[in-house]
Amino acid sequence: MRILGLDPGLRHTGWGVIDKTGNRFTFVAAGVINPDVDLSLAKRLAELHESLIKVIQDYCPDAVVVEETFVNKNPSSTLKLGQARGVVLMTPASMNIDVAEYTPNQIKKTITGVGHAEKIQVDMMVHKLVANVPEKLPPDAADALAMALCHCFQNPLLK
Amino acid sequence: MRILGLDPGLRHTGWGVIDKTGNRFTFVAAGVINPDVDLSLAKRLAELHESLIKVIQDYCPDAVVVEETFVNKNPSSTLKLGQARGVVLMTPASMNIDVAEYTPNQIKKTITGVGHAEKIQVDMMVHKLVANVPEKLPPDAADALAMALCHCFQNPLLK
Repeated sequence: MRILGLDPGLRHTGWGVIDKTGNRFTFVAAGVINPDVDLSLAKRLAELHESLIKVIQDYCPDAVVVEETFVNKNPSSTLKLGQARGVVLMTPASMNIDVAEYTPNQIKKTITGVGHAEKIQVDMMVHKLVANVPEKLPPDAADALAMALCHCFQNPLLK
Repeated sequence: MRILGLDPGLRHTGWGVIDKTGNRFTFVAAGVINPDVDLSLAKRLAELHESLIKVIQDYCPDAVVVEETFVNKNPSSTLKLGQARGVVLMTPASMNIDVAEYTPNQIKKTITGVGHAEKIQVDMMVHKLVANVPEKLPPDAADALAMALCHCFQNPLLK
C-alpha cells in the first residue's frame, strides 16, 4: 500500500510518499511544489494542478491524504488557502484515487499521542517510525509525510 | 470573440457564453453546474472540474471571466467558496485559456453604470444588450452572462 500525503498552500504545497508493508513503513519520496509567484492566480493554480498530476503519475499512490484546513482568522488568507486546497483535493479525485482528510490535531495525536504536539515532536516520530527518511526535509514535505503515516495508523487493515 | 463567464460556488457554479461581433453581443448558451451533494468534497470538486472541461470543450471560448470573490464574514463559507473558486480558475488556465477577474461592483458598474445596482437591474441590462437571451435564466447563469458582457465592455478592442 502506497500513501501520498499533501499539505496544501498557494505558495508551497508539500508532498510525501510512504509505503506500508505489514507494520513496516518506508520512505519513498517527498518534495514541495512552489508555483511561480509572478504568474496570475489562475496560472499558479494550473501549475499546482499539473505538478500534482506529475507526482501522482510518478509514484502511483493507492490513497491520498490531505490535512483538513484550519480556518484562518484572516478571511483573505482563508480564501487563498481554500483555492489551493480545492485544486489539491480535486486533482487525485479526478484521477479516481481516494482522498482522506484529517484535522491537524488528529494527525499529531495519531503520531505522537498528543493532539497539541510541537512540529519537532511530529518530525522526530516520522523519522523514528518510517525507514529511510532523509535527515533534513523541507517543513511542508515533513508535514505531508506525517499525514501519510497518520492514514496508515488510522487504517491498520491496509496492506 | 467568444467569452465564457463563470460564477463559482460549491453547490452551484453558473456559466454563460456570449459572442461579440463588433459592437453586437449574442447569447450562445448558459447553465448551472450542480455537483452531487452526497459525494465527498474531493469528488464534488472533481465533478465540477469535469463539467467545466465539458463546457469549455463544447463552446471553445477565447477568454474566461470569473468574479473576484467577496470575502464572506463566515470563515467556513469563505473556505468552501475558495475551494470551488480554485477549481473554477484553474480549469480554463490549465487548458491555456486566459482568465480575467472583476469585482462584483466593477461588473455592476460596467453594465448598469451603478456599482451598487440591484441584481434585477443587471439582469435587465443583460437582456437589453445581448441578443437572444432566454427570458428566464437561473440566477447563477444570469450572473455569469453579466461577467462575460463586462469583459467585452472593459476590452472594447476585442473583435
